[in-house]
Formats: sequence, structure tokens, C-alpha cells
Amino acid sequence: MSDMNPFVSHLEGAIDGARLEPNQVHTLHEGRPIWVRYDLEQVAQRMTKELVASREPTLWRYRELLPAGERIVSLGEGMSPVLPCPRLGSAMGANDLWIKDESQLPTGSFKSRGLAMAITMAHHFGIERVAIPSAGNAGGAAAAYAARAGMECYVFMPEDTPVINQYEAAMAGAKTYLVNGLINDCGRIVKEGMDQMGWFDLSTLKEPYRIEGKKTMGLELAEQFQWELPDVVLYPTGGGTGLIGMWKAFAELGAMGWLASDKRPRMYSVQSTGCAPIARAFERGERFAELFPHAESMARGIRVPVAVGDFMILDAVRESGGQAVAVDEARLPDWMRQAVSSEGISLCPESAACVGALESLLASGDIKPDERVVIFNTGAAQKYLEVMQTELPKLDCTQPIDYATL
Amino acid sequence: MSDMNPFVSHLEGAIDGARLEPNQVHTLHEGRPIWVRYDLEQVAQRMTKELVASREPTLWRYRELLPAGERIVSLGEGMSPVLPCPRLGSAMGANDLWIKDESQLPTGSFKSRGLAMAITMAHHFGIERVAIPSAGNAGGAAAAYAARAGMECYVFMPEDTPVINQYEAAMAGAKTYLVNGLINDCGRIVKEGMDQMGWFDLSTLKEPYRIEGKKTMGLELAEQFQWELPDVVLYPTGGGTGLIGMWKAFAELGAMGWLASDKRPRMYSVQSTGCAPIARAFERGERFAELFPHAESMARGIRVPVAVGDFMILDAVRESGGQAVAVDEARLPDWMRQAVSSEGISLCPESAACVGALESLLASGDIKPDERVVIFNTGAAQKYLEVMQTELPKLDCTQPIDYATL
Repeated sequence: MSDMNPFVSHLEGAIDGARLEPNQVHTLHEGRPIWVRYDLEQVAQRMTKELVASREPTLWRYRELLPAGERIVSLGEGMSPVLPCPRLGSAMGANDLWIKDESQLPTGSFKSRGLAMAITMAHHFGIERVAIPSAGNAGGAAAAYAARAGMECYVFMPEDTPVINQYEAAMAGAKTYLVNGLINDCGRIVKEGMDQMGWFDLSTLKEPYRIEGKKTMGLELAEQFQWELPDVVLYPTGGGTGLIGMWKAFAELGAMGWLASDKRPRMYSVQSTGCAPIARAFERGERFAELFPHAESMARGIRVPVAVGDFMILDAVRESGGQAVAVDEARLPDWMRQAVSSEGISLCPESAACVGALESLLASGDIKPDERVVIFNTGAAQKYLEVMQTELPKLDCTQPIDYATL
Repeated sequence: MSDMNPFVSHLEGAIDGARLEPNQVHTLHEGRPIWVRYDLEQVAQRMTKELVASREPTLWRYRELLPAGERIVSLGEGMSPVLPCPRLGSAMGANDLWIKDESQLPTGSFKSRGLAMAITMAHHFGIERVAIPSAGNAGGAAAAYAARAGMECYVFMPEDTPVINQYEAAMAGAKTYLVNGLINDCGRIVKEGMDQMGWFDLSTLKEPYRIEGKKTMGLELAEQFQWELPDVVLYPTGGGTGLIGMWKAFAELGAMGWLASDKRPRMYSVQSTGCAPIARAFERGERFAELFPHAESMARGIRVPVAVGDFMILDAVRESGGQAVAVDEARLPDWMRQAVSSEGISLCPESAACVGALESLLASGDIKPDERVVIFNTGAAQKYLEVMQTELPKLDCTQPIDYATL
């Protein structure tokens, strides 16, 4: 008997709406991602808000809206707190600013949501070897969940990926390789090795389930705000799975009649001037994004020059009334330091881009001071040695300390 | 009006039982730590298990058993998951092994519990400047919560403290100094600077509230196991606040009649052969531990050569029927790698010592294969660059990949 969620009705090609069989292994359809679809009427009859509230505080509390059955691969992921940020907000002129802090998930990033789900489903289908290209936190998360499931894992990373991301993958037992290229080059190595290595490709959006894991950010956000969604979501965008997933979550909750009103957040996809394919396509009015040349950003997780889900990101952003924007790469460290030192939240450089975007969107009037704004902190600052490192003053404890100089 | 928990009855000197006034700032009493005491009968009347279960999944759900009032300084800390570890357990011969994963707390360590509470109370008493000595994760946690409260923070660390711990404190805006000594030397700098600098000393157990924050590890453990405590707790011990706090939690829950039975876990205080003052005092049958000479351990958080709460740790360990043990320093990296790669949990080197202790205590028959054993993972492996770093193989993506060699 299948151990899948019985409320899954079918899968669906995102590019053409084709109806696909749920009980088999899928990758892409027509070279593009696949949606998981549910019988939402049935879900709404079975799942109640009270039932959800009574369950463990992990993303699995929304199990009727997730693909997995009873057997899950879990490290206790979710719910991440959504924290009010009055001090940062006040400095920026945003009177109702929140950060949803995904640094408090396993392996210190939001990647654990998608990979908990992808590995759970791969495990369900009997897959024993997986591979993933990663420019940042995904590699460590894939390695950790593969270890948890007893699977073999290969990770391919650009050679200038933050060192903590390199080491965490290796520490969790993944076969980890450094590549003299970007994430799309790593993705090509995974793709071309498929036949010979027999591994399953866990790349962003190249299987249907990471998006379902990331969707839980949106489900949690709704529950944490008593099913009344915020006005604005600022989300740092590399592959874009989280933004796409949240937009899907809001649609599903809306269809189930769980949301307090018709209001949906305006979704802002945030990139850096160093790598802004989605922002550029948005500006040009295009649905598909060209490869961004000479991509560079210290926020490695958004240094993704080409995204297979480009049209899904851009569709969601436009449908929501939001925008895709790029902020000044050079100012990322300042925004990061400002956020961490004013709120104590371990904000990563990718999410620092959202602080920058908020600054300019407030200045342009696109975001109003009294709107409820949520920034997603997608990972722990502590994982970015290269951005954090600094020279600290030294004291000689064998001599009397001159406190006046501290 | 005071914003303290009205169920706090008084404070109590740990060395002599002296009754102390709760509504004022305290440090040490007769050079030793202070307990917070509650009117447990009143608490038991007001707080129910159902009420607790209905609250947010943070440590503040136990608010009647915590010193704070309504105004708290929070980054959403707790509850951390307690994860079954069948693969690691099976390899070690432990059939009911669990890890409580504190790496999923703010700043990636269990230190956030104690410092959330200490900073909340310091804030309550109007303190605006704090200082802390730290050999590891405490500095970053103190800096983060001080930032969250809008307080000034000074951190003093041994110069060979893990670099991530150094940078996270600085990133959160703390004035961070490196000292050519150990944590006790840093502690002396804080103590001697008190008058001139006017800071409040947040050192381990030198104020009454960090222990109350750490206590929540025990409260959560009880709730997560449906109020039936495990047989064995393995806890890496530096200053020992967590072990002391958990033992206090079990006593309070017992007095309230909340525990399913009289069973209390045997508490094992785990250190490394490189720094084992508590293990040595335990072996010698002593209640106070001498300074451990030439203290050295790659697990920096347990490189604490002298602990002001030594007698409180040793009392708890003996009362519980447990032991204080030291494991081979040289094997810490192996135990760490074994745990991370077999379960995917980001185990820190300090907690790797507990894996080693489990191995020898199973071999000696002190722990039985079918006992329920819980290891505390006190921080994220990702914060230990120095222990994790490794040389990774490189691939040239401009050439065809020879997959057969991977």
C-alpha cells in the first residue's frame, strides 16, 4: 500500500497544466517543474484549525496539505518564530515590521523544509542515492536529511561557496566536491552523471516536493498571524522555491476558506545587483529570465544566474501586485550588521538584501509605513564566516586592564 | 508595580539556604549561586498541563515556573525537538537513544535559554550595560539578547575561542575582546571592571536567572515524553548550569505532582580528559572541585577549569545516582562525525563527548541497552569551523567529468 497522503489528487505540469500520475517518481515535465495538487474540499472536511493547533510545532502539523504519508524523514523542522522588529522598523520607518527567522531550523536554514520533504518522498519511492548542486545552505541540508534517511548523498558546490556550507555537507557524510564554476555548472554535473551514477537529482524544482516543503513557510505565517496574511512579504530569491511555495500555500488556504480575508501579501522577490535575472526580467515585462552574465554576490544563496522556475516566480510576483527588485550588492554587509545589531536576529546576507529593498520601497512609496511587512531570514548569519570575519581587539590578562580604553 | 512572576516566593542562597529578597538585583551570596524559589502549591493550582499545551512552542510556555513577568526579551527560543536516534543507537548498542537538539535555538545553541532569561531580568531591573566571559556560545547569545533589549554588551573571550563565536558577538554589536587566557581569566576581567565600568556581570551562575532559563530544557523534556522522564541524561559540562537547572526542574515538577512516576533520570556530567575538574572531584568523593591545571579541549564550551557551581553539579549528579565522567579528548572528532553522519543532527564537539561517555558506560554496564537515554546537543556543529574543516576534492567543470572516480 502506498504511503502517500491520500488527499493528493494528482501532479500537474506547471508549464502546460498536464495531469500527471502521483504514485511514481517524477523529475521535470517538458523541461519545467511540476505542482502537487490536493483534493482541497476533502482536506477542508478532514483538517481543522483546532486539529492543526493541537499537533507538534513542526511543519508536519499541516500533513493533509503535504505529499508524505506516515513515514517521514525528520529532524524536527519548523515552526520558525515570526518576531516583531520594532527597533529595526523604527530606524527604517516601518511601523509593523516582522522577521520570520528560519535560522532556527535544522542545519540553520530554510533549506531543511524543502529537503525534509524531498528526501522523505525519495525515501518513499525507494531511492537510495541522491545528488544536489548547491551554492549555499542546500548542500548541508541535503546531506543531513540523507544521513537521517540512511541514503548516499553527493553534493557539488562552487569552489567559493561559504566554507561552513562545504564542511557541514562533508561532516554529515555526503561526498562533497568543489567545482570551478557556478551553481548551474554544478547542476550540469548532476544532470550529466545521472545515468552512470544512478542518483536522483534533488536540484531546486527538478523534483515536485521541495516546493511543498517550502510551502510550509506560508502555512506557518498564516497560522502565526491568526490566518490574516500580512500586507507585504520580502523574500530573497535564488531558485525561488520558497516564494513560489508560499504563493501556492496562500492559494490553497484561500480555496479551503481558512483565510480571514481575500487579502494576499504583495510578494517582493529580492536580488542583488550582482545577480538579478528575475529583477531584470520583471523590469522588462518578461515571463522567462535570461541567464545573468558574470553573476556575483557575497550572498551566495542568491547567486543563481538562471532559474528553472523563473516563470513561476514572476507569475506569483505579478499576480500578487508585488515586484522583483535588485539592491546594491556593496551595501549588503551594512544592512546585515544593522539588522543583527538592532534586533539580535542572526540575519544572513541574502536576507540583508530584503532590508535594503524595504529601505528603497519605503522611499518610493511602494510600501507604506503602516503596512505589515514580513522579511524572511533564510539562514543563520553564523554560517557566513567570510562576511562576518573581522579583526577583534586583544587584551593581555597578565597585566592590569586599562578599562578606560575599552 | 513589579513585573515579576507573582509565584516567585523568594530567592535562596545555594550554599547556606539563606532566604533572600526577590525584588532586587542579586549576584552571588557568600560567593556562591542563588536559587529562585516558587510557591509551587499556588503554581500547581494555576498552571495545568492543558494550559501549557495550548501555548506557543517557546520556553515561555512554562511562565508560572519562570522568574519573568509579562515583559520578556525573546527571540522565539525553545522548544527544541527531542529526536529518536535509531541508527546511532543501534551502532552503539543503545536501543532507546534520543538527542535533544538545542542547535535549533536562536544563535544556534542552548545558551539562548539562559541568556534570554538573564537579559529579561536585567532589563526588568533597569540594567543597561552587561558583560560576560565566554569560552564559546554564550558570548554570541548574550550579544544577541542584549541587542534585542537595546542594552550595551561587553564580551571577553579566550583568544582561541572558535572564530564563529567571536564574530557572532561582534556582529550583534557587542564590544568583543580576545584575552590571552582561559574563561576564568576573562571572568576576572569582568569582575574587576565592575566598579569602573558599571556593567552587570552575566557570568555563569553569578546571577540567579540563567539557571531558570536552562531549567526549561528539563521542563520540555518532561512534556515531550508525556511527563515520564527518561532513565539517563548525558550532559556535557562546562559551568554546569543546564544540569543543575534540569535537576531543579524535575524537583519542581515532582513537587507539583506532574510527573508520571517517582523515577528521575540518572544525570551523567560529561567532560573531556583535557579538562575534567568535576569528573575528578566526583571520583575523589569531593563536593568542591579544584581548578583543573593546563585545561585544554577542542570542545571549547567544556574547557572550564573551575566552576562556581561545582557543588551544585556534584550534588545533583550524586542525588540522581549518576556519575561525572571524562572521555578521551583525542576521540571527540570521531564521535562527532559518527553522530552527525549517522543521524544528520548537527552535533557539537561538547556533545560528542556524551557519545563517548555512552560508549564506555554501556561497556561498563552502568547504562543498560534498553534504558531510555537522552543526549543533549548543546550547539550547532556549524559553529565549530576549527573542528569541521577539511580538504575537499575539486572538479574542473570545463573538462568532461570522470564519474567513475567519484
